Amino acid sequence: MKQAVLIALGDELLSGARREGNCGWLANRLALAGWKVLRMEIIPDGLGALEDTLALWAGKTDLIVISGGLGPTHDDCTRKALARFLNAPLQVNAEAYNRILARYPSEMRENLELCRISQGSVPEGAQAIHNPRGSALGISFLMEGTKICAFPGVPDEFKAMAEQELACEMSVSDCRMRSLIVVGWPESLLKDRIAPVVDDPSLHISILPSSGTVEIILRGEPVRIECAARTLRELLPGDCLPEGCFSVAEDLLREARKRNVTLAFAESCTGGLLGAALTDISGSSDVFLGSAVCYSNSAKTHILSVSDELLESFGAVSSECAIAMAKGALNQFGSELALSVTGVAGPGGGSEEKPVGAVWFALAGLCGERAFLHHFPGDRLQIRRSAMNTGLLLLRKTVMELNIL
Amino acid sequence: MKQAVLIALGDELLSGARREGNCGWLANRLALAGWKVLRMEIIPDGLGALEDTLALWAGKTDLIVISGGLGPTHDDCTRKALARFLNAPLQVNAEAYNRILARYPSEMRENLELCRISQGSVPEGAQAIHNPRGSALGISFLMEGTKICAFPGVPDEFKAMAEQELACEMSVSDCRMRSLIVVGWPESLLKDRIAPVVDDPSLHISILPSSGTVEIILRGEPVRIECAARTLRELLPGDCLPEGCFSVAEDLLREARKRNVTLAFAESCTGGLLGAALTDISGSSDVFLGSAVCYSNSAKTHILSVSDELLESFGAVSSECAIAMAKGALNQFGSELALSVTGVAGPGGGSEEKPVGAVWFALAGLCGERAFLHHFPGDRLQIRRSAMNTGLLLLRKTVMELNIL
Repeated sequence: MKQAVLIALGDELLSGARREGNCGWLANRLALAGWKVLRMEIIPDGLGALEDTLALWAGKTDLIVISGGLGPTHDDCTRKALARFLNAPLQVNAEAYNRILARYPSEMRENLELCRISQGSVPEGAQAIHNPRGSALGISFLMEGTKICAFPGVPDEFKAMAEQELACEMSVSDCRMRSLIVVGWPESLLKDRIAPVVDDPSLHISILPSSGTVEIILRGEPVRIECAARTLRELLPGDCLPEGCFSVAEDLLREARKRNVTLAFAESCTGGLLGAALTDISGSSDVFLGSAVCYSNSAKTHILSVSDELLESFGAVSSECAIAMAKGALNQFGSELALSVTGVAGPGGGSEEKPVGAVWFALAGLCGERAFLHHFPGDRLQIRRSAMNTGLLLLRKTVMELNIL
Repeated sequence: MKQAVLIALGDELLSGARREGNCGWLANRLALAGWKVLRMEIIPDGLGALEDTLALWAGKTDLIVISGGLGPTHDDCTRKALARFLNAPLQVNAEAYNRILARYPSEMRENLELCRISQGSVPEGAQAIHNPRGSALGISFLMEGTKICAFPGVPDEFKAMAEQELACEMSVSDCRMRSLIVVGWPESLLKDRIAPVVDDPSLHISILPSSGTVEIILRGEPVRIECAARTLRELLPGDCLPEGCFSVAEDLLREARKRNVTLAFAESCTGGLLGAALTDISGSSDVFLGSAVCYSNSAKTHILSVSDELLESFGAVSSECAIAMAKGALNQFGSELALSVTGVAGPGGGSEEKPVGAVWFALAGLCGERAFLHHFPGDRLQIRRSAMNTGLLLLRKTVMELNIL
């Protein structure tokens, strides 16, 4: 496996004023082409840090890519650092720089002329890399078997020059990486369930939980990956999203679409998160009709026809209210299925009987009426997010169990 | 100036499957508190890389913060690496872990018990850091004058634990820094507007745009900051949020509450984002009654009483439909003000007359009826987010102009 180290220069990255994106992008492209990225280092502007980092990795990796520090300002020192590292003088590369000048209108050329030295010079013996999107030349050379490239940090320029200079390195030969998204499993339980695959020494596996899903990334020989993916699907029937599908919401829409089933929500504590999750996905309108976000009791009564008596007897956080809300949404939107959510998101409003984190879900429509109680840990943000994820999972499961395919 | 090195572990970061965000966030917080971040290093899962990096920086910097590798899965090796680095055995910290267990319902506890060792152990002599948002304990210790902390990589958990454990380090001690949040200005125009303040050589100013707001951070002598903040509020009347208020939604609720005005939404292309933004904030129920997410035309007709004729003559993305939707929400929820949003979020559904990014907003209620057309650039995600931000700004402005204080 070919190995790379990626370096980004910039005080603005280290002060958190800007997020690094170039190395992340390149890492992804290299990974897809079967490379292993050993490190990404974000280092300050200036000579010392870059020289130290180069000294650490030159000769120990196949490729080093540097992002940034090639522009015209005083803190752009990459050219100088590379010249010192190579122990070679900087030379203006007139031919390459004239190609850049020619792209600009004549009135701008005069200013660019001043930048010739700062942006158009390259250490003696190194290659100048043409910049199709700007005026700073890139630099490339070989040192102790390591190819070292430097591109400007402006994302457009970095990407264009990397695509050009690293075309061979980034070409995807075969499928050495595959990602599976698992729904409805907490990371800790999932780990035990998929132990046979995780323990396979011929694969490199990453397990990445994000809200409501866990992503399993498999890397290794294509045949081993294929086999592991099959095993995972067998170990987790119905819980792996299909290829090309990245969220529960997306899969829910797909499953509902297959069955010609339309959906609606009645949301209290999620306040619109469920609707937002489905409408995030383009083309959701054929399946998703709408959501009644009824935060106040009067809205529940008026829009969802939850009776005052019911609210008085059982309260808004109850199976009775949840079912009435789901039926109300079904009726208002005319959908085949409706899901309701009503709970205590906190931090206020909890009681002994209905503590913060208690959330009722109800389904109505083709599946009949049912209600479920969950208790979610965490703060308001987490409780609302868990309620949204659980609601989507419940509805997906319900849709998949409908016998109308 | 105190110095820090930030380390993020994760093969998924090095393969570009996930973008690093924790160190970027912390770098920003530390920079605001006057720290200098020397490096951010993204290193692979496993023992060796972390031990090497710690050996390189321990004793040479005031603080090292590690993100990731504390979860229950096989690739989570931070605990083991720290124990080896400290040359001390791992010990289960029963007290801290029982506090976590107590938060979970009893049926989940049994499974978590199994994770005790993997998530609840800490090297002998190191401190266990309580995790308020999850089950993996953090670790903290001092080595050669360097404070070394490790937090889980899950962003919510990382941030909550860093806020808690690094409260002193991140505290902005005196009035040498002030942050102002400006709403409704694109960064490029804002820079010209506030040039007199930006050009003041006695201040250090950072301008950080985030979605819908721009944060201006002023650093320098307290007197100069005070003066600059006053000038900024004069240059941007009504566009700076009050001290202690961090989002447009929060300020909107505050302004509405002052005037005893209740709010409701009718959402089409935002699909619930507006409702979710207000209900994100605890205690919003006294002001926010609800939102009718009417994605389909039939829902607009049925719930918001938008007539079929209107939809046929003008279409759903029109000032006429927007006003009818706002009136429908006003009527359904019985609020004092209602805002509607209907537009083309794309990527499909655009036409020459109504291109992708065209979004109508309408207000109804105490302010009378008005409609506004905006054209937003970007993809579906950006258009929906811009529509949400613009909707909140419009409603905030409308509330502030009501003469009923």
